[in-house]
Amino acid sequence: MAYYIGVDVGGTSIKAGVVDDTGRSLHSIQISTEAAKGQEHGLAQMSRAVREAAKDGGLSLDQISAIGVATPGTMDIPAGVILDPPNLKPWRNVPVRTHIEREFRLPTAFQNDANAAAYGEYCFGAGRGARSMVMFTLGTGIGCGIIIHDMIIEGEHSHGAESGHMIIEMNNARLCGCGRRGCFEAYASATAVVDRAREILEEARGTSSLGQKLTETAGLTAEDVFSAAKVGDAIASRVVEDTAHYLAVGTTNLMHTIDPDRVIYGGGLIATGDWFLDRIRHHVRQLAFPVPAAKTELLYAHLGNDAGIIGAAACARKLVTVSTAG
Amino acid sequence: MAYYIGVDVGGTSIKAGVVDDTGRSLHSIQISTEAAKGQEHGLAQMSRAVREAAKDGGLSLDQISAIGVATPGTMDIPAGVILDPPNLKPWRNVPVRTHIEREFRLPTAFQNDANAAAYGEYCFGAGRGARSMVMFTLGTGIGCGIIIHDMIIEGEHSHGAESGHMIIEMNNARLCGCGRRGCFEAYASATAVVDRAREILEEARGTSSLGQKLTETAGLTAEDVFSAAKVGDAIASRVVEDTAHYLAVGTTNLMHTIDPDRVIYGGGLIATGDWFLDRIRHHVRQLAFPVPAAKTELLYAHLGNDAGIIGAAACARKLVTVSTAG
Repeated sequence: MAYYIGVDVGGTSIKAGVVDDTGRSLHSIQISTEAAKGQEHGLAQMSRAVREAAKDGGLSLDQISAIGVATPGTMDIPAGVILDPPNLKPWRNVPVRTHIEREFRLPTAFQNDANAAAYGEYCFGAGRGARSMVMFTLGTGIGCGIIIHDMIIEGEHSHGAESGHMIIEMNNARLCGCGRRGCFEAYASATAVVDRAREILEEARGTSSLGQKLTETAGLTAEDVFSAAKVGDAIASRVVEDTAHYLAVGTTNLMHTIDPDRVIYGGGLIATGDWFLDRIRHHVRQLAFPVPAAKTELLYAHLGNDAGIIGAAACARKLVTVSTAG
Repeated sequence: MAYYIGVDVGGTSIKAGVVDDTGRSLHSIQISTEAAKGQEHGLAQMSRAVREAAKDGGLSLDQISAIGVATPGTMDIPAGVILDPPNLKPWRNVPVRTHIEREFRLPTAFQNDANAAAYGEYCFGAGRGARSMVMFTLGTGIGCGIIIHDMIIEGEHSHGAESGHMIIEMNNARLCGCGRRGCFEAYASATAVVDRAREILEEARGTSSLGQKLTETAGLTAEDVFSAAKVGDAIASRVVEDTAHYLAVGTTNLMHTIDPDRVIYGGGLIATGDWFLDRIRHHVRQLAFPVPAAKTELLYAHLGNDAGIIGAAACARKLVTVSTAG
């Protein structure tokens, strides 16, 4: 059995774990990223995470076949460098892959976190057995990963599968976190769910059970909106139904561009349950061409909490098994 | 030197020609499709086109390495079958590839016409040397072809690169020829240029040089709109500038999904000249992320009149050289 270490670098924490050849996460650890302490410290934290994951997993480093590191932010994927990450300030031009490769003298894969999550699902999760798939990770933003016949669509300038920033509205379009207008993410992310709910509530205070949340310190969350919708709150239901429609628009656009076997949804928003997936499916049937509408499977992600680690490990595995894959 | 025959089946005519290994079209012929006479007659016309192209090109069929056939319409690409083509009524479930293969006992490629046109440009035209590219063919509708590392993105249900039917507007969206609303094609095709011009002119009769065209029997064409814009007509200029913006929206969406080296524009609309391409580039710089905006090349197609034949021949060539390509 071959073993890999997957490292999932986030804005607040670095997760790492040992994953076997079947995608099973044997053990995982989590330490703080402490990005503010600078990128040298950040690289040292990544190394520490690799060592701790191996040790706590009961393996020595010479039992590891390869390491995979997934990170957010603007990057040069082939070069293995994070360029200018909004969530990892003040890092700039951080040579992640070279650092890990030299430190551990092991084949090291470097990948965008949304791409890695998609590849993990493709190999070991909800995408297993599919020839091609698109994955949307629904959180603060919308991450996207596209896999076609075992190829991760990284793009020529590491901007492949940035489909959270497809334009789906041109007039009076919502402002996106990226500074542009009309992006898919500005309509269908968890952040957008809260923003749209707040806008409606501010016009209709008192008529929704959500109104009270607005005045509380912690503020409104996407989970609040979905919970209220589940128990029949009219405003929350409208926000959720709009969200399903917006997700169907983005899904249809990818179905009419990539035409994958499956579209997978991951991230915090899917915790609400299968009823919401059924609403997305309903709207996709209205919007997409008949053949892909009938044949494309829309599913929730399977990998759960360790998805980031498993995705990074799947990229490591791809690196050393590339001659037999696809 | 290897020779291929490319066959480009359209709603009104079938074009065929001999193309050499460097993408040079040696000779081409054109006959009527006569779709209304039924699909058996249509298949016979395709065979006739192959024979005439070889004969007029001065080659015997045993000098031909492979045949490529490109057709419009809903299809099953791996099966080589046209399913239900809107432009080739009353054809239904037409086994094009099997027919040609059996008739000529030669390797036969079958491909969607927009995909084939893109692959022709990728091998021999404006996409030459690119690792990946997206092509938009701007005509009555918007055809699209996506090539990534020599792979034609056909999709799992032959709906890959149907990006003319990405949704780019959700509210008060224009009606598309496909019956849906908000499709890219409903904004940026030649048909949409005419429709948008007509709508504005009907509100502002007499203030534009185009007004007269509206009352003429032949009606307004996209060419009329572009010609009037070139000489400074205000309404025509506005329609053209909006068209450049809409094309930039569709282009940006593909840049943020595929992130190709190049985006190529073909079809009737590009006859207007490079000034229009510069307007598309201007809007893409406003809409796309900085890195792809700076690095993605936007170009007009190079292959001209025989693009359909050369594209179909390129698919034939790919079929018999697949082990050495990509």
